[in-house]
Order: sequence, then C-alpha cells, then structure tokens
Amino acid sequence: MATDQVLPTSPIQASSVDYWDFEANVIVIGCGGAGACAALSAHDAGASVMIFELASDIGGSTALSSAEVYLGAGTRVQKATGHKDTKQGMTEFLTAAAGPQADAEKIEAYVEGSTDHFDWLVTQGVPFKDSEYPHRAIMALTDDCLLYTGGENAYPYNTLASPAPRGHNLQVTGDNGGPLLMKTLGARLNERSIPIHLNSRALALIVDDIDQQQVVVGVKVRIDMQERYVKALFGVILATGGFVMNQKMVEHYAPELTKCTVPIGNPGDTGAGILMGMGVGGQAINMHEGFVSLPFYPPASLTYGLFINSQGQRFVNEDSYHGRVGSLILRQPGERVYLILGVEDYGNYETESYLNADVVATADSVLELESDLNLPQGQLQSTIRDYNKSVELGVDYAFHKDARWLKAIEPPYVALDVTPGRGAFFPYFTLGGLDTLPSGEVLKANGEAVCGLYAIGRTACGIPRRGEGYASGMSVGDATFSGRQAGLAAANRMMIERNANG
Amino acid sequence: MATDQVLPTSPIQASSVDYWDFEANVIVIGCGGAGACAALSAHDAGASVMIFELASDIGGSTALSSAEVYLGAGTRVQKATGHKDTKQGMTEFLTAAAGPQADAEKIEAYVEGSTDHFDWLVTQGVPFKDSEYPHRAIMALTDDCLLYTGGENAYPYNTLASPAPRGHNLQVTGDNGGPLLMKTLGARLNERSIPIHLNSRALALIVDDIDQQQVVVGVKVRIDMQERYVKALFGVILATGGFVMNQKMVEHYAPELTKCTVPIGNPGDTGAGILMGMGVGGQAINMHEGFVSLPFYPPASLTYGLFINSQGQRFVNEDSYHGRVGSLILRQPGERVYLILGVEDYGNYETESYLNADVVATADSVLELESDLNLPQGQLQSTIRDYNKSVELGVDYAFHKDARWLKAIEPPYVALDVTPGRGAFFPYFTLGGLDTLPSGEVLKANGEAVCGLYAIGRTACGIPRRGEGYASGMSVGDATFSGRQAGLAAANRMMIERNANG
Repeated sequence: MATDQVLPTSPIQASSVDYWDFEANVIVIGCGGAGACAALSAHDAGASVMIFELASDIGGSTALSSAEVYLGAGTRVQKATGHKDTKQGMTEFLTAAAGPQADAEKIEAYVEGSTDHFDWLVTQGVPFKDSEYPHRAIMALTDDCLLYTGGENAYPYNTLASPAPRGHNLQVTGDNGGPLLMKTLGARLNERSIPIHLNSRALALIVDDIDQQQVVVGVKVRIDMQERYVKALFGVILATGGFVMNQKMVEHYAPELTKCTVPIGNPGDTGAGILMGMGVGGQAINMHEGFVSLPFYPPASLTYGLFINSQGQRFVNEDSYHGRVGSLILRQPGERVYLILGVEDYGNYETESYLNADVVATADSVLELESDLNLPQGQLQSTIRDYNKSVELGVDYAFHKDARWLKAIEPPYVALDVTPGRGAFFPYFTLGGLDTLPSGEVLKANGEAVCGLYAIGRTACGIPRRGEGYASGMSVGDATFSGRQAGLAAANRMMIERNANG
Repeated sequence: MATDQVLPTSPIQASSVDYWDFEANVIVIGCGGAGACAALSAHDAGASVMIFELASDIGGSTALSSAEVYLGAGTRVQKATGHKDTKQGMTEFLTAAAGPQADAEKIEAYVEGSTDHFDWLVTQGVPFKDSEYPHRAIMALTDDCLLYTGGENAYPYNTLASPAPRGHNLQVTGDNGGPLLMKTLGARLNERSIPIHLNSRALALIVDDIDQQQVVVGVKVRIDMQERYVKALFGVILATGGFVMNQKMVEHYAPELTKCTVPIGNPGDTGAGILMGMGVGGQAINMHEGFVSLPFYPPASLTYGLFINSQGQRFVNEDSYHGRVGSLILRQPGERVYLILGVEDYGNYETESYLNADVVATADSVLELESDLNLPQGQLQSTIRDYNKSVELGVDYAFHKDARWLKAIEPPYVALDVTPGRGAFFPYFTLGGLDTLPSGEVLKANGEAVCGLYAIGRTACGIPRRGEGYASGMSVGDATFSGRQAGLAAANRMMIERNANG
C-alpha cells in the first residue's frame, strides 16, 4: 500500500480464493501493544492464533513510546503509594477529558477492568515498582512508577474530577518503557508458540456471504513478494495503528493537524487497517481529532512562564498537561504564540528540553519585549502586570494556575517562539478510527457489527478522543486493554459457534 | 419518521415492490429552495418531474429565512452599485471562510456560475433592486439589495480576500425575502404543471441491482396514511434540509451545538434525507459543524461594545459578522461571556434587538463592574484601559476592529450576559450532510457515486462548511444553486441513457 491512499480498501470475495495458505481461529494484523495482547488473550481463551506484522520485528508504535499505562480505580501501585482513586473519579476524569464525544460504554468497561488489567500486565511479567515519580514530567526517567500524566491535578480537571495520578511507568530506567513492554509481551507470545509472520503486509480483507450476511473470513497478505491467502475461522483483528504517517489521509481527515511538525508513530501507521475496515462498511469516526503536544517541560521551571498569543494575552494555565497546551496553541487565532519567561527560569532549557523552540527575543523591560515581539501596544505590559499581581495575591483568578507554580515574571526576559510550524517540536498522532463496541467489534453506520471483524488500539476510536483531554498512557492503556477484549470476544465467538454446532 | 432517529434508513429492494403508484424521470424529495430549483431545472432540461413534500405547503426552511442570496464575481447589482468583485476575490473569501474543510471543486463551480445563477433567479421572476443597504445589519429591512453579510470587510477576511458585498436581498420590504422567493419559485413550478404531492413523507429509498451495481430507482412515501411506491427513472434528488430539528442526531453528531438555544429551520429538518442517503452507502461528512449566531446587531451601536470572556479578555473584533462572534463565543473556555457597553451605546437595544440577553450589571466604574461580574481582579480594568488607548490611537492592534467602530467605553457601563444557555438568542442550524460532487451526485466513502441519487441544499455538505466562516445568504445561495446542478445532472443522465439505448 502506498502511504498516500485515502479511499477505503475494497475487500475480495472468498469465492475468488483458490487456495488458503494459512488458517487459524483468529488472525491478528499488526503486532504492537494492541495486537500482542489480542493474540495472547485469544490464545489463552482456547483459540489458535496467527499474527501478521508489516515490520521486520514486533513492537509497533508501542515499542517506540514511553509505554506509560493509564490505569486507576485503585491499582496495586496507587494503593502502595497512598493515592486514593475511585471508579467514580476515574470515570469523571475520562469523561471530561474525552469531552462531548466521550464513549460512555467504553469508559465504563475500561474503568471497571482497570485494576484487573494492571494485574494481567503484571502476570505477563510487566514490572511496575510500588513507587511514585513526584515531578512535573512527560515521563519518568527513573524506574519509579506513578505520575500525573494528564493534568488531573490542574485546572480544569481538578474541578471536574477527584485527582489521582494514573500514569504507570514501567520499572526501567530512562525512556525505555516501550521496548521493555514489547519485549515482555513478545516473550509471552513466544512461550505460547503463537506464529508471527514478519515482513507481512495485509493487502485486503476477504469476505464471504454466509446466511445472506457479509462475514469477514480472512486476509490477503503479501510475504516475500508473494500474495498469500489467510483464513480466519472466527475473526480478523485489525491492530495496524492509526494514520499519522499517511500525509494525504491526515490532510483529508484531520487538516488541523497539518500545522504540527513531527508525526509520532512507526512507518506502518498509514491507516491501512482503518481503510480495510471502511471497505467492508465499518464507520470511521472522530477522524478530525489528534493528540497534539508542545513538550515544554522538562525543565519544569518553564511552567513559571506565560504562554502569550498574538494579542499579548494568556490563554491557558501553564501548569496544564503538555497535550492540553499544544491543543490550545493550535486554536489561537493569530500568527504567533510565545512562551515568555524570566531568564532565571529559562534555567537548563538548552540541555534539558525537548522543545527546540528558538529564543526570538531577550529584553530588560516588558516594553522592549513587547516591541521586539511586535505585540499590540500595551497588551503584554497589562498581561504581565496583572499576572504579577496574581502572584502577589497567591491566586491566579484568571486562569487558575496552581499557587505552587505562581512566580513573578521578572527581568531580564526571554521569549521562545512556540508557533506551530516555526521550529518548535509539535509531535502529534491521530485519535480517529473505526467505530467499535467495547469488545472491539467494528460497527457500521447503521449500528450493526461487521461480522468477523475487530479493531483495536489506534485503528479503532477508543478511550482517548481529543488532544485537549489526552493523558500520557491513554493510548498504550487503551491499546493493550482493547486488544484483550477483542481477543476474548473472537475466542468467545468460536466457543458459541462450536457449541451451536454441536 | 420519529424525529429522534439517528441510524441510517435502510433502503428497500425494488423486487419487493408489487406496484408503482407514481413514476417520473426525476423525483424530488422536499420543496424548499433547493428542491424547487432542482425541479425547475430538471423540467426545463426535458425531464418529467414529480415533487413530494412533507409539509402542507412548499417552502421549507428557505421560506422561513430572510433568503438573502450569496452571489458575486460581478452580478448585475454589484456592477450597478459600483462594487467591483472578481472571481478571484470571491474564491479567496469562500475558501478562507470554509477553512481547512473547504471543497475547492464546489467553490470553483459556485464562483464560475455565480452571475449566471443571479440571472437565472431574475429570469424566474425573483426581484432584486439595483441598490445597496449600507448598514451593519443581519438583513436589509428595506427593499434594497446588496449588503455585506459575512464580515468580508472586517478582520480577518479583509486581509485574506478583496472585500465585496455579496448578500443579495430580495426587493421586498421587511424580513420577507423567504416567502417571496418561495412564492416566486412556486409560481414557476405551477406554470410548468410540475406535480407537487404535499403532506407526503418519504420513508425509504428503493434500490435495484442493475448490472451488478446498486441503483436508486425510487422512493417509498406515505400519503394520507397510505404507503405509496414512487418510481424514479433517472434519479432521486434529496432536498429534505439538514438535521437541526433532530435533537438526538445533533447530540450524536454535533454535540457542541447543543449549547445553542434555538434551532433554525422547519420541523421537517430531521435529517431524513441524510439518513436515507447513508442507508445506501452515502457518506455524511462535516457532521460536527453548524452555523451559530449571536445576533447582537441591530442596533449597530452594540458593535462599539466589547465581548469579554471569563478571564476578562476580549477575544474577537466586535465588527465581525454575528456568526463568527457566535462561533468564537462557543469556544471560550470559561463559564460566562459578556457584552460590555457604555450606556450611551446601549441605545435602542430594548426595542431594536433580537438578542434577548439580560442586563446583568450596570456600574459607574470599571472596578465596580468587574466585581459585579465576578471577573478576575484587574483583568477588565486592563482590558478597557488598553482598549480605550487603542481608540485614542485609532488602531486596534490587538483585534483589528475597524477604526470606524472604535469608540471609548465610557461610564456608566452596562453588561449583557451572552453566555450560551443563559437566555441570549443563539440560533443555529447544521452544516454537515451527504458528501456530493458539484453535480449533487452522492458519494460513498470510496469516492464512487451512488447511482441514481442526488443531494442538495443542507441535505448535502455544500459551500458553507463552518460557523466561523458563515455568511448570510450562503445557505440559500448554495441550496438554489446546488438544486439547479442536480436537476440538470439527472436530466443529463436521462439524455445519455436514452441516446445509448437509441
């Protein structure tokens, strides 16, 4: 598949298949976190499973990620570190975070299964230390576990849901959670002798008419330049990631994201699974949404600064999660967005930061800074004067930045250009995908399931639904969890059909 | 159809139809502006046409509207009033207005056909006076014609496209354009003896398999409690409006719009046509978008005021079109939005305004006003001080409000509560619909057309694509224009098939 395909992939008819090269109860396409968990669960529930992976090794985008896992409602680590979390608190946060497009059924299933999912990961050998990482950070670089990853403890979420840290970092030093998670899951796949075909590109779904209904019965794949036909007796599970690497598809479905700079994922995230699902009638939803980040911390000291739009106004509490900040920056109407700091808080920016934003002005007075940045006369002066007054009062009435991050902006000043498209690091990935039930069954627009087809991870539209309410760990959490549900559902279908037949 | 249907309407098979009650070359469902123009054009191109309309009279939402028609590129009235407009200027405005989801092909067809469409309307007897209405207004209440209806002459559009007024108001006094337009088109339908079945509810499309392809061949309708089968030899044209009157569908597809107060349209705008189109594989796009308005003028003097969010900040140039203001209000993060005025500019608010916003504070000082409105300390003081400085300078550097609307905000002050959901009038309607070619042919997700099916007006996703860039007259302009294209396309299909057969 060229990476610029936008149109759905038409399926081929089973009647045109002369010979099935492979066969299993459940066929999994893609072996990142979602696919691996689907395969393990289907296997453990009694199904034979076969995996086809595009790349030369398993891992997918999960292996490239930090692999925090967003879990709560009282996990072992939350309890051990004294963090009270409840199903209600987690439900309220996930609902507020997903906004008006929240999927209440998926959230309920995820919250109800959250502690069990943690335990299941542990059973697979995924290590979590009973400790927390009490810093403002995008990820834990120590082997500590628990951290706030979605601004649960910052405005507005701290007013909408009882805050608890839910980002579970694996017990590994450095940004190495993803490789460790996939190595661990890979070892479990190997122990079970689940066949994994690498360098295998899924080309099209295969459908049959059974009892006047279209059923997905297999996949056509290309392995070593040969086209192979793979029969799935009880289900095909699409786990091929999102579409962030398909530029045309991003332009078509999520044009706002084209302002961002660095697509996050692996080269296989071309939307192939979504397009195959659409080709058999699956509905793709929420396709305009994506995770967008401005990773402006560490160093945490940049949180003392102020984000300023072209009107010289603040527009966000700067202690927000980097994803919320990135999303709001994308929505500012003017031509520039700056992060303005006292030089003292610029601190270790150049060595510690991922931000890559250029210093576009330094100044000894706000007047000079305002002029250097071409901001409307007087606006930045008002903004900084008002902010410094809030600092004196100890309350940011305007934007509700927490008191511990309130510190006067003092000269000399530094301004970083964080305008999308002007050098600053704006990573992004897609949050739209196939509409599914919590079981992973792919839904058509009419609400009926496509028989025999499941979608999981970023191939589906899951728990995370918008950039503004993303939290680190949501994607890996949702991928691994939805993978397990789909693996179980496909195996369950097998049991039901076998019992019905006798 | 209940108004709470969300799922696509499944078609019925032609093979199950025993008897066809009616037959015509082209069947038009719905007789608002779009349907009427489609019927006229198909008829004039040689096709027999039959119309089925849900209500007891023709008119649809067009008859309820002001029926300004958004046209340009040098119409007769533009020339007569000395307004230079070009295809390029109109294209640039429509493209900027539609934003990232602009449909370049549709815009090109609309601009190319714009002066011809004006002339065609005139030929039908629609009267336009060669005059302009040089006031800041939502509609012309005199019989004058031309006015700016989309903020073409305000920031940001005046920097993106050469401004020209393009709202063409009919030559009729008062807000009576809609009734006159539909009366005129209705007379033309009658002269041509095009049969119009009133009180006729379309229930489902009828499809047949012809040459292994699904073709729309008719419609099942209910008339006088009887189900009737209507055969369309060369096309069914869906002109049933949008879905603003279907609360469940709005909640499902456009949840942001639920903050608005008054759905604009007729009771038949339940999405019936969109759902029928989806049921035969048509793709609905842009479904989250809608027109949203805060009709805060007249009196134009309210434009001298300042819109203020919960942070005490301005967020828009107040000389923007009321639709842009409404859209931006909907996006403000806090709990309240106010319009703040000097009492002098409050003027004839109570007698002239449609706004219905409550006065929530009056005050002799900004300090008092800020406190009464619970705004963060100092913010409103800064905002008004900065704004009054802009007025002195004669330039609104921050928000680019035009100099002629700059006037100092002086005591005593009045604050109107324009928060969505708190009484102020927030009319809205939907801008998502079936994906179509400029010809009106309905497209599936795979880019193929559904043979025999056309959608027009708000049943399709047309020229207007987002609230932020809406201009009065776009919907009636698009509806009447797209209607003509679809009527011609269906008649053209007839000619081609007849020639092929003969």
